[in-house]
Amino acid sequence: MTTHSPHDSAIDPTHDPRLRCWVESANDPDTDFPIQNLPFGRFRVSPQDEWRIGVAIGDQVLDLAQAELLSGNASRVPTDMHALMAWRPQKRRAFRRALSEALRHGAQVPSTMRMALRAQAEVELGVPCEIGDYTDFFTGIHHALSVGRQFRPDTPLLPNYKWVPIGYHGRASSIGPSGESWARPWGQTLQQDGKVPVHTPSRQLDYELELAMFIGTPNARGCPVDMAQAESHVFGVALLNDWSARDIQRWEYQPLGPFLAKSFATTVSPWVVTMEALAPFRRPFSRPEGDPDPLPYLNSPANRAAGAIDIAMEVWIQTAKMREAGLPAQRLSRANFTDAYWTIAQLVAHHTVNGCNLRTGDMFGSGTISGPGEEQGGSLLELGQGGARPLPLANGEQRTFLEDGDTVILRGVCERPGARRIGFGECRGTVLSALLRGDFEVLRHGQNFVAPAYPVRT
Amino acid sequence: MTTHSPHDSAIDPTHDPRLRCWVESANDPDTDFPIQNLPFGRFRVSPQDEWRIGVAIGDQVLDLAQAELLSGNASRVPTDMHALMAWRPQKRRAFRRALSEALRHGAQVPSTMRMALRAQAEVELGVPCEIGDYTDFFTGIHHALSVGRQFRPDTPLLPNYKWVPIGYHGRASSIGPSGESWARPWGQTLQQDGKVPVHTPSRQLDYELELAMFIGTPNARGCPVDMAQAESHVFGVALLNDWSARDIQRWEYQPLGPFLAKSFATTVSPWVVTMEALAPFRRPFSRPEGDPDPLPYLNSPANRAAGAIDIAMEVWIQTAKMREAGLPAQRLSRANFTDAYWTIAQLVAHHTVNGCNLRTGDMFGSGTISGPGEEQGGSLLELGQGGARPLPLANGEQRTFLEDGDTVILRGVCERPGARRIGFGECRGTVLSALLRGDFEVLRHGQNFVAPAYPVRT
Repeated sequence: MTTHSPHDSAIDPTHDPRLRCWVESANDPDTDFPIQNLPFGRFRVSPQDEWRIGVAIGDQVLDLAQAELLSGNASRVPTDMHALMAWRPQKRRAFRRALSEALRHGAQVPSTMRMALRAQAEVELGVPCEIGDYTDFFTGIHHALSVGRQFRPDTPLLPNYKWVPIGYHGRASSIGPSGESWARPWGQTLQQDGKVPVHTPSRQLDYELELAMFIGTPNARGCPVDMAQAESHVFGVALLNDWSARDIQRWEYQPLGPFLAKSFATTVSPWVVTMEALAPFRRPFSRPEGDPDPLPYLNSPANRAAGAIDIAMEVWIQTAKMREAGLPAQRLSRANFTDAYWTIAQLVAHHTVNGCNLRTGDMFGSGTISGPGEEQGGSLLELGQGGARPLPLANGEQRTFLEDGDTVILRGVCERPGARRIGFGECRGTVLSALLRGDFEVLRHGQNFVAPAYPVRT
Repeated sequence: MTTHSPHDSAIDPTHDPRLRCWVESANDPDTDFPIQNLPFGRFRVSPQDEWRIGVAIGDQVLDLAQAELLSGNASRVPTDMHALMAWRPQKRRAFRRALSEALRHGAQVPSTMRMALRAQAEVELGVPCEIGDYTDFFTGIHHALSVGRQFRPDTPLLPNYKWVPIGYHGRASSIGPSGESWARPWGQTLQQDGKVPVHTPSRQLDYELELAMFIGTPNARGCPVDMAQAESHVFGVALLNDWSARDIQRWEYQPLGPFLAKSFATTVSPWVVTMEALAPFRRPFSRPEGDPDPLPYLNSPANRAAGAIDIAMEVWIQTAKMREAGLPAQRLSRANFTDAYWTIAQLVAHHTVNGCNLRTGDMFGSGTISGPGEEQGGSLLELGQGGARPLPLANGEQRTFLEDGDTVILRGVCERPGARRIGFGECRGTVLSALLRGDFEVLRHGQNFVAPAYPVRT
């Protein structure tokens, strides 16, 4: 039996698994970026350049401004990512179809189009767009439960969790691109005595396996978005690592929530997989027997029929020792976005229920997505049970929290029988050792973070 | 005995209380904007115009772009507020001096300069600049105590309060200008039974009396700002009303902090009083006997000598009934920014201690500033003791929380013997009745909020 849902109508010829692309690497069965994907991002050739809009295709990036002839849908291709993201869904779909047709094997391809391709490996991939407000949600119920057990043993899951899509505002300024390195943050943490804090580098650095959702069309301030329209405001999805300093968090987070425990770095992957590309991977959304129905403003037939999305998510680690020994990264855990307790549509409807305006380029985090099993935790806090059970690694090392030199890599992929597998690329970041006073001088040269030239102290 | 402090050296001829201005309204003893103030803001003549940078002088605004000749300090006057805000303190001081000299009574005034004046009443005053990230702190210890007593009777002041300048990220998209009206927000609130929530307009709307601080020069990501440099990153101070829906807040805020209870509207006053203008009003900063010393990264001799600022702050209300009866606004409470437990320098040093980057135009809220007395609460939650003791108004009405049609006005002023009094103008906002489903259609016309044309239902 197949599930008929409103999203089936969103499946169109661009999703046909038989389609092949004249960019040969896009036909590799293992590529994340076949012609059925077509995610958007920003790239540049040198740090002096303006960011340009690109589409990932195989191991290449198509420079949209150079490939302007694509705009068979009567509009010029914008050079500003926000302008493209703000397009209405109908226009986005038409553009996707034009892109798909132009990249299809056998298409009449003018030489200008071939010239608009560059190897992804040879360009710098940035944060997908300028991000206005960043909201981090808490949709991973297995994460909420296992972290809740550590922070509040008496009430791991608070009474509001199954009613309210819990979220909080995050820091937008310190969101950086995949591939970045950043220094272990300093902060206030409680000493052993549990009374007097000290100013020290964090000793409990962690990652969080999340998805990022980008807002496309905005809503007017004062005007809630209802469930029927909610997804039309979302442009697409990427991977997000919401790095966290657990010792700072534990001391600071009452009563107003996480602050400096998160704001030192948040890493986002370069490619935004559009809602259109995700159409074949929609799933019915339901709740465990006995859980309350969502309030009407968070409920709709379409959401029940296909509100969830099957995105397999993974965390990998490569420690400094692995790198030195020539060992590849090792997978730490797997989870799936269908494990989330709330859908994307519900997040949009809830965020705007009070009239809050979402702007083009605003970003949501899903919150850490963990699976139900102990080995499926989306953070080290879970996998290592808050330090109680260090996680053994294949090369003999173990981890309670991250150590200097650790590189964490998030991956995501959608697959199902009868559809072409599409992927999210990777979201990668490396922890450097804490800076000392003298090091800070190195950094006082400009507004933007530059990976410092000092060695990793391990 | 006078206190000699590092800030005394920041007092220069621009602060001379004897200075008079050739703009006659600036010499009115009651004006907030004498020649000793010179705050910056943005204005426009029609909604189609770009925002322009202005300086408030008496009841006029000086259009900086038109008054370009002022730039005797060799640089052109920027047309972008961020460019001006990002100037280093030395350049800002030189520009202030040039402005003061050009506006001084007896100065050679070219006619172009007189032509660059417009009545404030005839222009639209906006939010002072584009705001990137908004961080709301919690520096009002009397507020923290009295609200803590209501939300957590057992532990009103949490153990971290005297160590950590508690803060959280706020919503930037819904910050609006003084004079705005907005509709009572909908949200989830708990029913009487204390178990099942409902989707309803908030019944516990409140204001919060705060100051806003604007970041001028940015810091590089990864690079903490130490106490000695902290204030040089701050451009100036304005008034802020962090409207709050207490019933939504009580239900949603655990474990990640306030979210939709605040993000429907935050109102900021149009004029940013510069740190230079505030120099005569600096005060020593100290803590009650027995309280812990701040950790070294939050401590400095200059901060102890003059880290505090004497800013008298007030809340006024004008209800719909007062307006109909021709009655003026009534003052609800008074407090002073010297009641804050943390200084501006400490907020900057703390926010960046983990390497978080502050950008030009980022805004801090002080958190609600209340005085020590019961009648000095900076919110209705305090003045009305959470509903236990409705606040009587002079016209026979009373308030537990805000009602439809209420206008709340914040004011601020600095005065001391031997200095010219300067003020902040006002920060004003009006609560409209909750929108019904049909009303939302009215608002679906554009991205920006337009005061709706429907009547206030009282």
